[in-house]
Amino acid sequence: MAMDDEIPGAVGTSASFALRLGQTIFSAASLLFMSLGVEFHNYTAFCLLVTIMGLVIPWSITLAMIDIYSVLIHCPIRQPGILLFIVLGDWTLSFLTLAAASSIAGIVDLLHRTDVTFCTPAGLCSRYQISAALAFLSWFLSTASSLSNLWLLPSLSR
Amino acid sequence: MAMDDEIPGAVGTSASFALRLGQTIFSAASLLFMSLGVEFHNYTAFCLLVTIMGLVIPWSITLAMIDIYSVLIHCPIRQPGILLFIVLGDWTLSFLTLAAASSIAGIVDLLHRTDVTFCTPAGLCSRYQISAALAFLSWFLSTASSLSNLWLLPSLSR
Repeated sequence: MAMDDEIPGAVGTSASFALRLGQTIFSAASLLFMSLGVEFHNYTAFCLLVTIMGLVIPWSITLAMIDIYSVLIHCPIRQPGILLFIVLGDWTLSFLTLAAASSIAGIVDLLHRTDVTFCTPAGLCSRYQISAALAFLSWFLSTASSLSNLWLLPSLSR
Repeated sequence: MAMDDEIPGAVGTSASFALRLGQTIFSAASLLFMSLGVEFHNYTAFCLLVTIMGLVIPWSITLAMIDIYSVLIHCPIRQPGILLFIVLGDWTLSFLTLAAASSIAGIVDLLHRTDVTFCTPAGLCSRYQISAALAFLSWFLSTASSLSNLWLLPSLSR
């Protein structure tokens, strides 16, 4: 297998490490904004976001460690099976992240206009919005990772 | 370019035609359930779904016609530029569909439990839920189309 066709963002490159680091930071920030001091467990969508972020953070940290290890030993992962597993995991998590972020964006927009008591502690709605925005950023980076790996996959499996 | 590596679901195959037909049907059904006799323009998320479905329907119909034409003349599209355009369009529409469907699912779940006046005409909430479910199905088929075309793309551009 020739190593000259290096794809930026595929597993085992420094670009991939940067993407994973960004995912971890944005997910953790989104989780903190959503969960600290807020009764998030009243709403299904908010619980979904907290659950998904709790899955994304360990997944991204694990893959970030694999990336930095691969960069250090100059031997990126090129087994189609492992790559397929990573692509499928990334896809699932990125779709769930998008779904959770969209739900929250829709709910906050709706309640902001119809229910005046929803944002009673000042700045509560802003926190929800920031959390959704951070989740969108995390989704964007996760999709970028997934696309890079998916782009690499057909060249390995033939 | 060898034609033996036919990928089911890529542009110009009968599987792709079936996917496009399914997208059109589900999107049209979702649009009808959402817009007929409902004041959907009060809520941002509902307007988003109607807008996106209004984009998905012509897009899917156009590509379905391209597919059936390609099947009839036995000459699938294999230009990387056109394929990239189709992949990008599919991706954008599928993400927007997922976002709209998730928003509506979140909102309906929330209002169903907190606001008793929201579902006052009997069966209104069920209609919203059916519309969101149909949009999810349309998203699923759209993602399948996009993945098939994306899988084909790296083999063309080298």
